[in-house]
Amino acid sequence: MTHPQTRFLSVKVAGNSLIGQRRNAAKKSTLLYQLDVLKKTGRYDAFKLEWKDIYSQEPTVWPIPDHLFWDSDVAKWIEGACYYLQEEFLPEVDAAVKEMVEMIRSAQQPDGYLNIHYTLVEPTKRFTNLRDMHELYNAGHLIEAALAHNQLYKNDRLMEPINKYADLLYDTFGPGPNQVHGYPGHPEIELALLRLYERTGNTKHLALAKYFVLERGNPTGVNGRPYYVTEAEMRGEDERYMPHYYPKPMSLWYHQAHKPIVEQDSIEGHSVRAMYLLTAAADLAAHDDSKDCADLKRAVLRLWENMTCRKMYVTGGIGAIEQWEGFGIDYFLPQGTDEGGCYAETCAAIGVMMLAERILKFDRDARYSDVMELCLYNAVLTAMSWDGKAFTYVNQLASSDANPSKREDWFTVACCPPNLLRTLGQIGGYIWAYDANEKTRRASIDVHLYVPSTLRFNVGEEEIEVRQDNKWPWDGDISFEVRSSVEDISLNLRIPGWSSGYILEPAYPAATVEKGYLSLPADYVTTNKSFKLSIPLEAEWVIQNPLAGRNIVSLKRGPIVYCVEDIDNAWVHYHFRGTFVDINGRLTQSTVKDDHTGDEYVGLSLENGTKMLDIAQSQTGASMSERDFREQLDAGKDIKELHFVPYYFRANRAGKGHMRVGLQRQ
Amino acid sequence: MTHPQTRFLSVKVAGNSLIGQRRNAAKKSTLLYQLDVLKKTGRYDAFKLEWKDIYSQEPTVWPIPDHLFWDSDVAKWIEGACYYLQEEFLPEVDAAVKEMVEMIRSAQQPDGYLNIHYTLVEPTKRFTNLRDMHELYNAGHLIEAALAHNQLYKNDRLMEPINKYADLLYDTFGPGPNQVHGYPGHPEIELALLRLYERTGNTKHLALAKYFVLERGNPTGVNGRPYYVTEAEMRGEDERYMPHYYPKPMSLWYHQAHKPIVEQDSIEGHSVRAMYLLTAAADLAAHDDSKDCADLKRAVLRLWENMTCRKMYVTGGIGAIEQWEGFGIDYFLPQGTDEGGCYAETCAAIGVMMLAERILKFDRDARYSDVMELCLYNAVLTAMSWDGKAFTYVNQLASSDANPSKREDWFTVACCPPNLLRTLGQIGGYIWAYDANEKTRRASIDVHLYVPSTLRFNVGEEEIEVRQDNKWPWDGDISFEVRSSVEDISLNLRIPGWSSGYILEPAYPAATVEKGYLSLPADYVTTNKSFKLSIPLEAEWVIQNPLAGRNIVSLKRGPIVYCVEDIDNAWVHYHFRGTFVDINGRLTQSTVKDDHTGDEYVGLSLENGTKMLDIAQSQTGASMSERDFREQLDAGKDIKELHFVPYYFRANRAGKGHMRVGLQRQ
Repeated sequence: MTHPQTRFLSVKVAGNSLIGQRRNAAKKSTLLYQLDVLKKTGRYDAFKLEWKDIYSQEPTVWPIPDHLFWDSDVAKWIEGACYYLQEEFLPEVDAAVKEMVEMIRSAQQPDGYLNIHYTLVEPTKRFTNLRDMHELYNAGHLIEAALAHNQLYKNDRLMEPINKYADLLYDTFGPGPNQVHGYPGHPEIELALLRLYERTGNTKHLALAKYFVLERGNPTGVNGRPYYVTEAEMRGEDERYMPHYYPKPMSLWYHQAHKPIVEQDSIEGHSVRAMYLLTAAADLAAHDDSKDCADLKRAVLRLWENMTCRKMYVTGGIGAIEQWEGFGIDYFLPQGTDEGGCYAETCAAIGVMMLAERILKFDRDARYSDVMELCLYNAVLTAMSWDGKAFTYVNQLASSDANPSKREDWFTVACCPPNLLRTLGQIGGYIWAYDANEKTRRASIDVHLYVPSTLRFNVGEEEIEVRQDNKWPWDGDISFEVRSSVEDISLNLRIPGWSSGYILEPAYPAATVEKGYLSLPADYVTTNKSFKLSIPLEAEWVIQNPLAGRNIVSLKRGPIVYCVEDIDNAWVHYHFRGTFVDINGRLTQSTVKDDHTGDEYVGLSLENGTKMLDIAQSQTGASMSERDFREQLDAGKDIKELHFVPYYFRANRAGKGHMRVGLQRQ
Repeated sequence: MTHPQTRFLSVKVAGNSLIGQRRNAAKKSTLLYQLDVLKKTGRYDAFKLEWKDIYSQEPTVWPIPDHLFWDSDVAKWIEGACYYLQEEFLPEVDAAVKEMVEMIRSAQQPDGYLNIHYTLVEPTKRFTNLRDMHELYNAGHLIEAALAHNQLYKNDRLMEPINKYADLLYDTFGPGPNQVHGYPGHPEIELALLRLYERTGNTKHLALAKYFVLERGNPTGVNGRPYYVTEAEMRGEDERYMPHYYPKPMSLWYHQAHKPIVEQDSIEGHSVRAMYLLTAAADLAAHDDSKDCADLKRAVLRLWENMTCRKMYVTGGIGAIEQWEGFGIDYFLPQGTDEGGCYAETCAAIGVMMLAERILKFDRDARYSDVMELCLYNAVLTAMSWDGKAFTYVNQLASSDANPSKREDWFTVACCPPNLLRTLGQIGGYIWAYDANEKTRRASIDVHLYVPSTLRFNVGEEEIEVRQDNKWPWDGDISFEVRSSVEDISLNLRIPGWSSGYILEPAYPAATVEKGYLSLPADYVTTNKSFKLSIPLEAEWVIQNPLAGRNIVSLKRGPIVYCVEDIDNAWVHYHFRGTFVDINGRLTQSTVKDDHTGDEYVGLSLENGTKMLDIAQSQTGASMSERDFREQLDAGKDIKELHFVPYYFRANRAGKGHMRVGLQRQ
């Protein structure tokens, strides 16, 4: 059971790729920028437990106090900082980590408890509202921070208090008669505990994670009813007294707690919660052979399929609905606010990557890594500006007057920017996976993503170095070089599901592609220390599941989804809502070097295949004849060239804020 | 200011037309059937004010007690019954009306108050929750019942208590310092008071209607805040304590009370409330020359346009969203539950007809009467079975496993069946409108709908009789015959917006069509006492506003929208969701005489133009290439003939409950 958070230590990502550039921006700008924000907003020293005005303010999203997530904001920054500090000493960052860790230590209560809100603001109400109050979520992020800190500094300054807190939690929650039979409203601690178990080998951590995962959704958990129902009653809460994110009273599906995970057939509720929960479930299932965990594995795969086939945007984004930041019904994937939603939160796409990575451990199938890559390049990368200083939380696929396309400096609920920071920090662990058997002196290496990078690890005393060099995602030629005295090295290279084929040089006639992975056995690798894989990258129109009944097409090239922006298409009105494309029109491509950002990418254009309707004049009554509409379309304005840029590149230049991914087909 | 409720007395609808048949079914079956239900459910004698168990039950839709509408259920049945009794004496119906009226009389309190719930169940809480509790809505329906009763029986047995109650309301509500500055949560009383004013000439009734309409949405109505906010506070209600139909706290748009009507730009909230309110606003605006009412008229027309262009189904149905039984965002018109909604309540479509009729009085434009007809034949007629004994409340455009296509005997909230009953009862008043000037001996007649019928009215002592004969909506030939000694009779005949033209015989070269009405002046009518108008009826594919971005087409012929049902297309799976049509395929039509129902209609078929995909196998991941989808479609199952029946005819025969109006285009 290894995780990207440790595996990335074996990987060096080249700085000149798209991923490398964004990672550098995160290291050079985002880290310090976010540190500054932590300080300005009061988060930085919040573990000192001094009173701040915000603690008595009315919540923006009732009943969640705005400062409730501060523990996790601090923890995520520490975690991310520790990843970057692994490769470069950044004095200011290092000093801040150390100071923050001391403040966290100072906040711990004698019994091990560690939480800002419930120590300072509501000290008598610990663990009385697991459903809403993010207490265990914060604990999970503290665990992850401690793991990263311990990995970097090789000391227990943070690990020690966190272990103590974990002991308290183990004593508090569980099936025992004097224990609380609850589980977190927002999963996170489950996956953190499993990583903690990997480090400590302490079976308490495994047991608590397993309890949280398997107890969740128990319909008769406490007093014959679900835990949250009884808990709310004990708070004296009328069930009609609804949190803002509940569309109906006691919407337990919001927390994926409407039934046990193993009984769930469709992915529901808050999308980040769903991903974090399933990440833990997949991790647990990967290394536990019990019947419970076999059922769990089946449920995870079932829910993955439901999600990716029915509830995922073409960008990999998930969660259409703003109110509960989560999934709508099957195939309901509006592109923007004026179409009914498009939340596609950054953290949720990061969660999809986490889940895909966990599943790949027990089912190496390109259907998972294809989506992992889709999310990375589109739904995740789109959330940070080229310079690492501006962000998006919601990743809509189309702008509107209500929500123009733009980036923000920070957010009240600031989960996404530091999440992006820590994900890019450990990205090397997503690119490669490997298995080294010291006894047999065998190594098996999976290449899940094509990003210029070098993997180095040992089999016993011997080092293996594998390097991939490429201009992915713009060019499909990928060179590999293997350096090692180890003789039994096999490689599994992803052949994306969207590709029309591949070429391997030198050729290997016996090659097989199984579940989207080209397996190169040791005899091939030994003979060919250098070889090249070529995957054709061609622009193509894609649709969402046809059952969505939408007349919408999007442009995609390799893993990159494109969008149109007003800065390249100055004629635009109404956010391209009245723009209709001829999918048989001529597509051209060219390499663009953007002066402002320094970004280089392949731009696409549709020539003589675009019509624009003036939607303000489009007044049809309840219906209009299809024939009349054809005439109206024929009379529409011809657009000579419609220019597309990668979706992740949106909102990086000036502009009026008009942007759209999916366009109507003529 | 005349209304269909009185005007229908001048019209005799022929029994052999579609409308005539359904009207007969209502008279022969529905009236007695509904009377029986009123008795069985306890509504019939509820005005006796004896305690019933239901009064202490938990509400189905909190906070509305299930019995809260009983006053209106009784009133609507009485109203409908009185319309049918005008043309035929039905002893059992007559006796029931009389008994119910006496019970209503007996329930009146000494001060005039008249309401079941607030007299018996919560006697101390009168007028403390106008927002939710339907007190004034019930009063409105009692007024309408009294008007119909008085018109039939020419006595004041019901009018007297109702007038007394109206006096109490006039004293209670208004701008005075000791009056309540409130307005009904569910409009209805406004339009009823305007009709009462027409009958009584009592300016109190006009003034109270006007107060309710213009005060509505006042942002500083009471204590500097909207009335409902202050009212909730006075009830001691936390605003987070939300009624089930509120998606967010204090969603005043649900009641169209988020701002004054004259400031509203888009139609919002509960669709029946919106229609009843605008019906009153249009009626008020039609006869009041004040600045306020001129603004009101503009607002009504603006909201009509917003609704019909952006928020109306091809059937004329309105209100996509189940939770608040009302409007979603622009262009959001899913066809069924599994697509995100399709409420399209029967009462709302009836409300559209009411509103159209009121607007036509000051703006004779076929854009209003076209929609009125669209609603009648599709969104309204579809809600009653051929025999008048089974109903729909929600009129979805596509069935699903969760909501198969079927009819119900009755509903807990039983607004729709009696509403349909009373609408068909007065339908003559929608077909024709007229204006008779005794002094100039001139008459002007509008023909809004083509339904075989005879209009008879007097200009002074002289009678005018105009008869239209036709097989509409199946055949476009309409014969007119005018009989009268009055010489100055002009006619305005609707030329539907969807028609490709018209032929008049004998011809009238000087004829003009203005706003969709062909004007035939007195000299033409005098010369041609018989003439024929022919409007071509052709099947055509229609779409919703193209900005909806939907890949959906529906079949329409004249005013009739079609659907597909499993009984005619036995191969169907998944409610036709995987059915794709070629709109260039061959359409054939034939007259069908259905043995079971006796209905005769024009059926349509698409020959060799239908593909069926097995949607259970359709697994595409987050996106699929458009080219791959084409291949999948080409390999789909060919359906030789796809058979369509009129949408109103759905769920009248056996079947598995699969039905769909809009199909995907290939």
